[in-house]
Amino acid sequence: MALLGQVNPQFADIGKAFVSHYYKIFDTARAQLQPLYQAESMLSFEGEQYQGMQPIMTKLTTLNFQTVQHIAKTVDCHPGINGSIVVFVTGNLAVDGSVTTPLMFSQTFTLVPTADKTNWWILNDIFRLNYS
Amino acid sequence: MALLGQVNPQFADIGKAFVSHYYKIFDTARAQLQPLYQAESMLSFEGEQYQGMQPIMTKLTTLNFQTVQHIAKTVDCHPGINGSIVVFVTGNLAVDGSVTTPLMFSQTFTLVPTADKTNWWILNDIFRLNYS
Repeated sequence: MALLGQVNPQFADIGKAFVSHYYKIFDTARAQLQPLYQAESMLSFEGEQYQGMQPIMTKLTTLNFQTVQHIAKTVDCHPGINGSIVVFVTGNLAVDGSVTTPLMFSQTFTLVPTADKTNWWILNDIFRLNYS
Repeated sequence: MALLGQVNPQFADIGKAFVSHYYKIFDTARAQLQPLYQAESMLSFEGEQYQGMQPIMTKLTTLNFQTVQHIAKTVDCHPGINGSIVVFVTGNLAVDGSVTTPLMFSQTFTLVPTADKTNWWILNDIFRLNYS
């Protein structure tokens, strides 16, 4: 399958491990997300678009809350183009301790292997709160 | 940007037009979605995975409702790998006429240009209902 390239047979495990890793860092030390973004990365956050590591990190580290906790409820992973992995998450978000009245969110990522194939970075990151 | 390939500058318009087209067909004549899927297509529907046009179409055409209406509330589009387009939708779903008590859904697509570049097909399709 030329389009998919070399599919990593562990794509689902990698995607789930990424989700766990990403939200753990997001919820405790957001600035340390930086190595996961590169110059080609694009973030859409509630409809606002940011391109490149620095604009993305500026956005993520200046979000207007003190504490946040992501609870991923579903994680779906697909093999993507050229050995990438598409990761789709739905879950709850407790902002500033509001664990009894969480927001609902969904988020999709395209993960791309680093050049030395030892790690993964985020090409596409699209985040939305889900309002009824 | 070698990774992204030749980015279609109309990616956002194409993505939005696709969403409108896709849900219009889904809601009125689901069997006619078939040309949008190919052998490499993968669908995740509420966590169940289907690979290839026929398994996907069998799933989509045997969903257990009489009528359905998708109301897309947000559509985010990103340029993807090799000229693909990542499309992320959140919205409401009225099943069997329950427009006053809609379900919430989110869905992500990777669209790939056909070989002659005149059209698009769905490589990745991931659908989830959003439950609080």
